[in-house]
Formats: sequence, C-alpha cells, structure tokens
Amino acid sequence: MLEKTNRLTLVEQVALQMESLIESGKWAVGMRIPAEPELMAELNVSRNTLREAIRALIHAGLLKTKQGDGTYVCSASALGVVLQKRFLRSDTLQTLEVRHALEREGAHLAAQRRTSDEANELLLQLERWEAAAARGDMDGFVTEDIRLHQSIIAASHNEILIELYNHITEASQDLITSLTRYEAGADFMEMHRQLVEAIVGQESDRAVAAVHRYIAESKAVLDAKGGERP
Amino acid sequence: MLEKTNRLTLVEQVALQMESLIESGKWAVGMRIPAEPELMAELNVSRNTLREAIRALIHAGLLKTKQGDGTYVCSASALGVVLQKRFLRSDTLQTLEVRHALEREGAHLAAQRRTSDEANELLLQLERWEAAAARGDMDGFVTEDIRLHQSIIAASHNEILIELYNHITEASQDLITSLTRYEAGADFMEMHRQLVEAIVGQESDRAVAAVHRYIAESKAVLDAKGGERP
Repeated sequence: MLEKTNRLTLVEQVALQMESLIESGKWAVGMRIPAEPELMAELNVSRNTLREAIRALIHAGLLKTKQGDGTYVCSASALGVVLQKRFLRSDTLQTLEVRHALEREGAHLAAQRRTSDEANELLLQLERWEAAAARGDMDGFVTEDIRLHQSIIAASHNEILIELYNHITEASQDLITSLTRYEAGADFMEMHRQLVEAIVGQESDRAVAAVHRYIAESKAVLDAKGGERP
Repeated sequence: MLEKTNRLTLVEQVALQMESLIESGKWAVGMRIPAEPELMAELNVSRNTLREAIRALIHAGLLKTKQGDGTYVCSASALGVVLQKRFLRSDTLQTLEVRHALEREGAHLAAQRRTSDEANELLLQLERWEAAAARGDMDGFVTEDIRLHQSIIAASHNEILIELYNHITEASQDLITSLTRYEAGADFMEMHRQLVEAIVGQESDRAVAAVHRYIAESKAVLDAKGGERP
C-alpha cells in the first residue's frame, strides 16, 4: 500500500511538471511533445510513470494523442478546458450575463488604469472595427469586435479577470458571433465609441454607463431572437 | 499503436463516467468510493483501466487516496478545483475585483428575479448577520456575511454565475475573513441593509448603487491594510 501511494505521488509530480511546461508556453499549443525515451531521460522516470502522467493530462484536456502520430498539446490551460466544458452546457442568456459582469468591471478598471499606449491601441482597434463595418465585412467585424473587448479587458490590468474573460470568450465564440451579427446597428456602434472614448478619457462612470447601454441592447436582441430564459 | 489508442479511450470513458457520478452528487464529497473489485464489475473494466481512470481523477483533484484506507471524493467539481488553484496565486485586489464584478451582476439580476420566498430569506439572513454583529460574534459575523452574499447571488437565478461565485468564495475564504473583520463598521452594515432592501423592493439601480458603495469601502480597507496593487 505504501509503495502504491508513493508511485501515485510520482505520477502526480511528473504530471504537474508537464503541466507547468504547457502553462508556461514552453510546450506550445499545437506542438508534439518529445518522444517517450527522451521524456523518460529528461524527467528521470520509468515508461509506466510517464504514460500515466500523460494520461492524466489527456484527461485534463491539455494533451491529445493522435493515432500513430504521437501526443500533442491541445490546450494551454486547465482552467480554460473546464470553463469551456461548463459554458458549453450553459444557456445563452446566462453566458451573456457572466460576460457582461466581467466587461462592466473591465471597463471600470480600464478607465482607471489604461496606459497611454493602451489608450492609443484602443482607438486604433475601434477604427479597425468601424472600418470592417464600413466595408460590410461581417466576419472581420465579429473578429474586431472580440479584439476590441479583449483590449478593453486587458487595460484593466487584472490578470485573473483577463484570463476568465478570454476563456469565456473562447467558450462562447458561436454565441458572440451570432449576437454581434444581429447587434451591428448604428446605435450599437455609437455605444462602443462612447465606451472607448470614456476609457481613453479616464471617465469610469461614463464607461460603465456605455457598457450598460450595449448590455441592454444585447439582451433586447436576444429577446427578439427568442433566446432561452433561465 | 491502435491498441494503445483504444485503451486510452476506454480509460477516458471510465474517468468521465466516474466524474459524472461525482458531479451529480451520487458520489458525495467525503465519501469513500467502492472497492476495486466492485467497481471493476460495475463498470465492466479491467483493474488497470480502472486504476488509470482513478489516477486521472486524482490529478483533476476530484479524488484522493488515503494511505491504507481507500480512495475518497475530495471535490465535487473540476471547475472548483482549477479555480481554487488559480485564485491561490492571484493577488488580493485582483481577487476582490472579480468577486465584485460577480456581486454587482448578481445584485442587479436578483432585484429583477428574486421570488418572494427568496426575498423573505434575504431579510432573515440579513437579521442573522446583524444579530452576530450585535452580540460581537466575529466568526459568526463572517460566516453570515458569506451566506448573505451567496443568498443574493442565488436569487440571480443564473447558475453559472452562482457556481463561479461560490467556487471563488471558497478559494478566497481567508481573504474574505480578514477583510470582513476590518470592514465591519456601522456604514458597512448599513450598505448591506440598503442592498437587501433594494433587492427585496426590486429596485435594480439602487441595489447596484449599494454594491458600489461597499466595494469602495472594501478597497479603502484594503488600501489601509497595504494590500498588494497589481
């Protein structure tokens, strides 16, 4: 029994070691991890221990085995994987409300903390978004919309808020895409310009008020689409 | 190679099966899971497959082996485990800001959606909290404070908001305890009464305004304590 427990601990240690290689980006997403003999030598463990640790990371959603082609990194973050899984079975309105909670806090903090570089980048990003709309490029519009919101959250300088927001955005990509297509009226554009200008002008209350307006707009769009209610 | 891949898939299936037993509460936290022979028969798998699946769940933080005493359920949620891990290395101010983002949205939605039972429960919970303060029971005060906030979030009827909030609360218990002890002035009590009354009265804007006030208070307390800044 003692031996078994020790062995478990070793597997766990090796799994954690590989997890930190992945989370630090040394093993990047899409990369094939080194072959077994190499890893056994590098981590100084037996084949069985290594295989078990790899299986634990496959279960955690960080690694994936391609038949006949080795093991690949498929996600950089265990938090991202579980959030993805959780948001897949969340309804549309609930997902939207969590996003909005983070966007409101992000806008509030960004207005207080954005650097001047970030202020310039936000204005540029807003222009890219408006340009995509002007040329009727719907896919580009959706992409630039996501980037705009991510830039705002990034300017909050709250790392955990940024991480949660980006994972949730990834997990609800389809929802965002469909809502953004519906929302893209002149009002919606104007609210975002007001939001960015408030952050650039370091006006926290105005930024939050702009977020409130587009949240109301998004919920109205969702209602019109007959989205699920909790 | 083919065989290996199939075997992995089976381990993965068994791990997912056990994970859903845990997440559904059939295997409750604190429970010892059935012995190997029983599980092998029930899940119709070999000892090796079963052991590997169990190790995957140990890595995910859902199971724990007690030396010489079998394997126990130690967490009901993989999301809870990763959030716990993530918030452990987050700084105080950042954690507080994420909590506040969820509390603000929760208060806003609770004012719109609370049932009359929930309204009554919120008033009762507020009284329990005030009673703990009145008799100078600091531990009781902290516990009732956490319960009050959880009841407010519960009245939002947004399941994912509730889950995220409860996991984050669990992960930042020490922080909440220390801040709540510092904050417990008459103003802080009054803000919470206003918050609850606004939710009971279905006044969304007043509820959010009350949250804003105690957030400002919490941040002032944190500043006075010399809490870390991002």
